[in-house]
Amino acid sequence: MILSDEEKKLIAYHEAGHTLASLFTEKSDPIHKVTIIPRGASLGLTQQLPLDDKRTYSKEYLEARLTVLLGGRAAEELKFDTVSTGAGNDLQNATEIARKMICEWGMSDRVGSVTLERDTDGIFLGKRLAKEREYSEETARQVDIEIKQFVEKAHNTAKNIIKKNKTKLDKIAKALLEREVLTGEEVKEIVYGSKKNRKSSKRNN
Amino acid sequence: MILSDEEKKLIAYHEAGHTLASLFTEKSDPIHKVTIIPRGASLGLTQQLPLDDKRTYSKEYLEARLTVLLGGRAAEELKFDTVSTGAGNDLQNATEIARKMICEWGMSDRVGSVTLERDTDGIFLGKRLAKEREYSEETARQVDIEIKQFVEKAHNTAKNIIKKNKTKLDKIAKALLEREVLTGEEVKEIVYGSKKNRKSSKRNN
Amino acid sequence: MILSDEEKKLIAYHEAGHTLASLFTEKSDPIHKVTIIPRGASLGLTQQLPLDDKRTYSKEYLEARLTVLLGGRAAEELKFDTVSTGAGNDLQNATEIARKMICEWGMSDRVGSVTLERDTDGIFLGKRLAKEREYSEETARQVDIEIKQFVEKAHNTAKNIIKKNKTKLDKIAKALLEREVLTGEEVKEIVYGSKKNRKSSKRNN
Amino acid sequence: MILSDEEKKLIAYHEAGHTLASLFTEKSDPIHKVTIIPRGASLGLTQQLPLDDKRTYSKEYLEARLTVLLGGRAAEELKFDTVSTGAGNDLQNATEIARKMICEWGMSDRVGSVTLERDTDGIFLGKRLAKEREYSEETARQVDIEIKQFVEKAHNTAKNIIKKNKTKLDKIAKALLEREVLTGEEVKEIVYGSKKNRKSSKRNN
Amino acid sequence: MILSDEEKKLIAYHEAGHTLASLFTEKSDPIHKVTIIPRGASLGLTQQLPLDDKRTYSKEYLEARLTVLLGGRAAEELKFDTVSTGAGNDLQNATEIARKMICEWGMSDRVGSVTLERDTDGIFLGKRLAKEREYSEETARQVDIEIKQFVEKAHNTAKNIIKKNKTKLDKIAKALLEREVLTGEEVKEIVYGSKKNRKSSKRNN
Amino acid sequence: MILSDEEKKLIAYHEAGHTLASLFTEKSDPIHKVTIIPRGASLGLTQQLPLDDKRTYSKEYLEARLTVLLGGRAAEELKFDTVSTGAGNDLQNATEIARKMICEWGMSDRVGSVTLERDTDGIFLGKRLAKEREYSEETARQVDIEIKQFVEKAHNTAKNIIKKNKTKLDKIAKALLEREVLTGEEVKEIVYGSKKNRKSSKRNN
Repeated sequence: MILSDEEKKLIAYHEAGHTLASLFTEKSDPIHKVTIIPRGASLGLTQQLPLDDKRTYSKEYLEARLTVLLGGRAAEELKFDTVSTGAGNDLQNATEIARKMICEWGMSDRVGSVTLERDTDGIFLGKRLAKEREYSEETARQVDIEIKQFVEKAHNTAKNIIKKNKTKLDKIAKALLEREVLTGEEVKEIVYGSKKNRKSSKRNN
Repeated sequence: MILSDEEKKLIAYHEAGHTLASLFTEKSDPIHKVTIIPRGASLGLTQQLPLDDKRTYSKEYLEARLTVLLGGRAAEELKFDTVSTGAGNDLQNATEIARKMICEWGMSDRVGSVTLERDTDGIFLGKRLAKEREYSEETARQVDIEIKQFVEKAHNTAKNIIKKNKTKLDKIAKALLEREVLTGEEVKEIVYGSKKNRKSSKRNN
Repeated sequence: MILSDEEKKLIAYHEAGHTLASLFTEKSDPIHKVTIIPRGASLGLTQQLPLDDKRTYSKEYLEARLTVLLGGRAAEELKFDTVSTGAGNDLQNATEIARKMICEWGMSDRVGSVTLERDTDGIFLGKRLAKEREYSEETARQVDIEIKQFVEKAHNTAKNIIKKNKTKLDKIAKALLEREVLTGEEVKEIVYGSKKNRKSSKRNN
Repeated sequence: MILSDEEKKLIAYHEAGHTLASLFTEKSDPIHKVTIIPRGASLGLTQQLPLDDKRTYSKEYLEARLTVLLGGRAAEELKFDTVSTGAGNDLQNATEIARKMICEWGMSDRVGSVTLERDTDGIFLGKRLAKEREYSEETARQVDIEIKQFVEKAHNTAKNIIKKNKTKLDKIAKALLEREVLTGEEVKEIVYGSKKNRKSSKRNN
Repeated sequence: MILSDEEKKLIAYHEAGHTLASLFTEKSDPIHKVTIIPRGASLGLTQQLPLDDKRTYSKEYLEARLTVLLGGRAAEELKFDTVSTGAGNDLQNATEIARKMICEWGMSDRVGSVTLERDTDGIFLGKRLAKEREYSEETARQVDIEIKQFVEKAHNTAKNIIKKNKTKLDKIAKALLEREVLTGEEVKEIVYGSKKNRKSSKRNN
Repeated sequence: MILSDEEKKLIAYHEAGHTLASLFTEKSDPIHKVTIIPRGASLGLTQQLPLDDKRTYSKEYLEARLTVLLGGRAAEELKFDTVSTGAGNDLQNATEIARKMICEWGMSDRVGSVTLERDTDGIFLGKRLAKEREYSEETARQVDIEIKQFVEKAHNTAKNIIKKNKTKLDKIAKALLEREVLTGEEVKEIVYGSKKNRKSSKRNN
């Protein structure tokens, strides 16, 4: 598949948005690599490690993750004044994390310290057959409202980061279009200049 | 199956409606071929490429697609003052695209940047067995309202295009009844006259 | 199974009702044959061709079909002042056509140009296993209201036709009880007299 | 299983109730045989033929059937001032007939001339797997209200018949306790005396 | 499993509660044996025969059964001012009987003489696969309210019996802790003294 | 998997929270062992025996269990002013116990002495296939409200215990970080000093 220049530019800004959001979100994991080379189903990639069931994550860490996920769409909106299908995967991940924060990890005051997982008893040939919602419609409505608020809060945080750092966004996107792959170290050089100038920059944002 | 003249005329205007809507919608794909020769389940055909999961589409592009899909019905309404079963497939495609815009790609402000896909865990012999809606009835209602608005907006846009270009609609339909197949180039000649006269016409509509 | 005279009379009037409704509904298909000889599950038969997925039908044609389907019950009501189980199949067909007009062919203003088909992804051994309603309860309620209105409108149209043509109804029913089968031509002779007297009669009703 | 005298008496009055309701309901089928000898799941039996899909039944006939079905419980209530589990089967049959009158045969004004059958597409190994309700919750509520009204109307009719004919009820029950089986002819003799005295009695009730 | 003295005491009072409720409920079956020796899933046992599908039970008999079932919990509440998990089975049985009284046997005025059983058509390999509720949410709500009222009425009746006969409760519980098994005859001796003193006691409560 | 110091500290305080809640909840089981060594899916462990179907538990005992389960999260909140995913399992257990208290053991006044278990008839290959909720949406809403209140009550109790005993919490957490495993006896020494000083301490909290 050959991408048009317009598509490449959109992807570059999308990935630059993730990268910038990650860089200016305190609890976020550090960036290892950013690329606009399509890989599998993904058009670009800002590498984040998957959540590990054996580790313990704080609410702040998960909120940071949501912000980074929404960074791609935020960059599209502010650069091109539109949205694209390219954020579909990010939104799905963000929705899933927000749902778990609310329904499995008790991180929503509105829903409280109860879990609202679905029943998984109906296993057949190793697959869940029919999952029945264990809770009421009213509770489902509360969950929907909370998921939307968790994701929109991250969306707004990401948009604020991008707005304040538009020049940096342009720099990263341009570098991605030229080089196609950037390491975390290279991203920092693009954003803050050479190593010695960087010391206090994170604190200031 | 032998079609009556009345049926042929209805199909010709239906396809002419798609063609005209496509021609006067800026973000729409160009037309390759239009035909009123029945093929498979389809009575006529205004060729549009299917959406490709590997590409990125903007909200404007998808809205253009909805407008073209509704163009067939709009032409029927304005020419014959009635609607027919012939638009069934178009409406199904339009509804499906609108649903994805809202539920998978976060393109509705009302619903927000969350995804509302159905759960697909219950796979059995390679097929989804039972899909359970993951969201509340209230959210389902919001989605219904948005789908209807997305499709009706495209319907109105298509009707406006047809209304403003009724003579052109008649010309395309007449040509289709005579020749049964038209290339994109031939359509343009019918609508704008010979190539040299065409330069500025798209901009003016 | 031997039918009582009372049952035979009821069936004759039921079929005469379909026939009369068909005769006085402009967009209706012409009648080929009417019979009160039981065939399969059906007690009598006023032949109408099934809807063909490959053809295109206008909203007016489908409304005519509903009127003919309700003609049987309308005749029972006006002749015997009661209703019977004999209309069950007609009502099922009418409900199904009305549902498709609203949910597949976008012919209801209230519901709009969206399709509301059920999801059919869960195929197993060539059969749909579990079909999940894709739309909200509120939309389901709108659909119910529209189906009822489409069918009741046809019901009223059929009752008006029968009321205005009661003598004709008696004539057709009487002929059916005597001869058991009538061709479309014979029906016309019964209703309008010999061919030469017929010319303007349709226009007057 | 040996029944106590109390149970036998209850069954006798229950069957006498069916019999009396049948005798004084104009459109009801004639009684062939009544018995209090347990047979299969049934404690007693007032023989009624099952509804035949190939026949046509009027609304009045079906209402008569409901009245006869409720006659057993009505007799229990008026004789013993209580109700028992013995009417369970009658209520189930009555509910099922009422449901069909409303949902399949269009006999309820409130619901109208539409059918509300459940979808039966999901066939697997010759069995319906999952039946999805095709209509909305609001319509389901209307159906529930109508079913209850159809059954309660029959219940009241049955109670009025029993109340007006209490001596006859006692006579039939007593005869059933003595003889265990009664033919329709014997029932009539018990109720009206010998054949020659009977002529006008039906008309007077 | 070795029970603590506290657990044994709780079980003894629980069973004594069933016994006392049975003794002072007119329509109840006589007690055959009471025991606090654990058997299978059951911690103690106040023997009641299961309901037999072939018999006929009056509403009063079934209400008596509910009262006896709730007697165990009532005794716990009045003796220890708390409730325990030990009543789980009793509540399940009581709920099931109340549901059948309302949904199968038409014993609730609010719900009426209709049956509200679930559909059992979807049989697969001899098992019901998916049971669809045939009635509306509003009716389900009425059923829930009635079930709760039937059970709570029995609960209150049981509590009143226990309150009025607290000394008798202590006597039975004490005897159970000493002897572990009591016959119906022994229970009566404990409650009323030797046979000759008993004659009028039932009537006075 | 190597845990960071930050994660170890969080786990130590989480387990110390369970331990402290257990120590100051009268009806709670005694502590046998506390550890921060990861085992299976669990990051740390404050040993509590599972509920045994053959035993009888009072409502107070189960409330104590909820308090201990919420103790881990309460400690996280008060020490680190945040919540983490580490409490997911505790919340799931607490929710499940609260649900059983309300739906199986009749321990909620609002829901009453009825059971609200799901139907488990649809067994296939030893697994429940589809479980249908037997009760109405309104009842489901009552259950949700009660579950939330049961769990939040325990949460508040746990937070109060931790707040009043913050120094003790620090001591236990510190000992866990140093020794990784503590016996119940060691915990008591940490909290109350040597055995002879301990006599009246429980009573005072």
